[in-house]
Amino acid sequence: MKKIHIVGLGLLGGSFALASKRKFPELTITGWDINQQNLQDAHTLGMIDREQEVADQDTDLVILATPADTLKDILEKSLEEAGESTLIIDLGSTKENLCKSLASHPRRAQYLAAHPIAGTEYSGPRAAFAELLDRKVMILCELEKTNLHLKEKAYELFDALNLKLRFMDPEEHDRHLAFVSHLSHISSFMLGKTVLQKMEDDRNIFDMAGSGFASTVRLAKSSPAMWAPILTENKSNILSALDGYINNLKDIREKIADENGAAIHMDLAEINKIRDILDLKG
Amino acid sequence: MKKIHIVGLGLLGGSFALASKRKFPELTITGWDINQQNLQDAHTLGMIDREQEVADQDTDLVILATPADTLKDILEKSLEEAGESTLIIDLGSTKENLCKSLASHPRRAQYLAAHPIAGTEYSGPRAAFAELLDRKVMILCELEKTNLHLKEKAYELFDALNLKLRFMDPEEHDRHLAFVSHLSHISSFMLGKTVLQKMEDDRNIFDMAGSGFASTVRLAKSSPAMWAPILTENKSNILSALDGYINNLKDIREKIADENGAAIHMDLAEINKIRDILDLKG
Repeated sequence: MKKIHIVGLGLLGGSFALASKRKFPELTITGWDINQQNLQDAHTLGMIDREQEVADQDTDLVILATPADTLKDILEKSLEEAGESTLIIDLGSTKENLCKSLASHPRRAQYLAAHPIAGTEYSGPRAAFAELLDRKVMILCELEKTNLHLKEKAYELFDALNLKLRFMDPEEHDRHLAFVSHLSHISSFMLGKTVLQKMEDDRNIFDMAGSGFASTVRLAKSSPAMWAPILTENKSNILSALDGYINNLKDIREKIADENGAAIHMDLAEINKIRDILDLKG
Repeated sequence: MKKIHIVGLGLLGGSFALASKRKFPELTITGWDINQQNLQDAHTLGMIDREQEVADQDTDLVILATPADTLKDILEKSLEEAGESTLIIDLGSTKENLCKSLASHPRRAQYLAAHPIAGTEYSGPRAAFAELLDRKVMILCELEKTNLHLKEKAYELFDALNLKLRFMDPEEHDRHLAFVSHLSHISSFMLGKTVLQKMEDDRNIFDMAGSGFASTVRLAKSSPAMWAPILTENKSNILSALDGYINNLKDIREKIADENGAAIHMDLAEINKIRDILDLKG
């Protein structure tokens, strides 16, 4: 591993750069960001050795960490420009459309579809930190379509970064993520919106907010440039998750309106099963 | 401050006991819990010096930390049994109905309606810890109805525990809390339910859950015995908060269905304003 090129030097791209530098001190990292301030910050923060839009021909890995709606174009362009032993990896939060659009690309074997389950509600290079990826799950899709020797380079980096690899179909990935990530973001954003609307009448409403509110509304701080594209990109799975969620909310609304305390208690006790599942994970 | 009696030795009552002991080592704490295991644990954990159902006549403060649906009866009973210089404080999460029902009670001056904005998703005495209340907001309602000298005793304890006092009408309290606490719990419980339902088809769905999901679903671990009564107790405010939330979810659902990325982006960017408000608080 001698040279990596990173496109998109925000929270994820920046953290990848910092972690890679730490593990491979001899590594050269070139990088690019469409945002000039990000590019400058990435330099100042020691994430990249050189700013350049196009990867050198002898680059081992090109890592794409830009918003979901930009990935298809950047990925196609990167594949065209790439040297013969360069592997292009995208880190996008949705995988189905991207994998489909690349299915019959002549250089498909030089592409690896990846998604690290790592992030915070903050964005940009200044939010990045080397530990973000440490011991996180990294989902890889359609592994069989990627060239064997090029994959080895990716594994070398992922193992060094302590990523825990998981493999699944792009369809399965998008279906799962709609429920355990995208729906969480929507619920949090809409919770924030509801309380902000209430604040128009009651200015002091946030004074009474405790740690529970902070926890449920944290994701409402997330970047719109990252999240708006994910929501439309994974539309059908998200609509299905959202419909289930709205139905459950309507159902408990009925029970509250009926003052059916016993039914509510039964519901909440059943949902408490999530304790065991989350504790097993944690 | 010589003697305190605590009814309900769970997370909140137990934490009150531990913090009070730490600040007033000479204090005698008597206590009661309808659950024998809790009572025994409270003893083992050093929360109470003596188990007894009824407070001694020379008790300074009786603190009621039981579920919302039990408070009215326990409060009336406690007022009847209380010595003349005992103050009864309830720590319930809803205040309007309780204050109304006590409005013309002959011993109303011996009651103080309080609500500490402090908790975790865990419950029972084993979840309690002395720091739970440290520097948390403590809302007090209808302060003018409580006897002046008795109030001083409460202030002595609250100040020692570093509680930050806030004053408001019971109606205002319940209206605000519906938005910044009760709605968060409902959104989290229903998110948990939606993903558990999905898990019936996809058993491995939680493998892909990251810190964002954990954060939004954390409150779904909360105690049904505590939360089911709060939801019916604060029914009208919660229905109003819930209707606003469901409408916002339906609205973004439309925008996703229309693939209206620009409108979604505008929405999320507007909601990002919550960053400044939360950062100010934090």
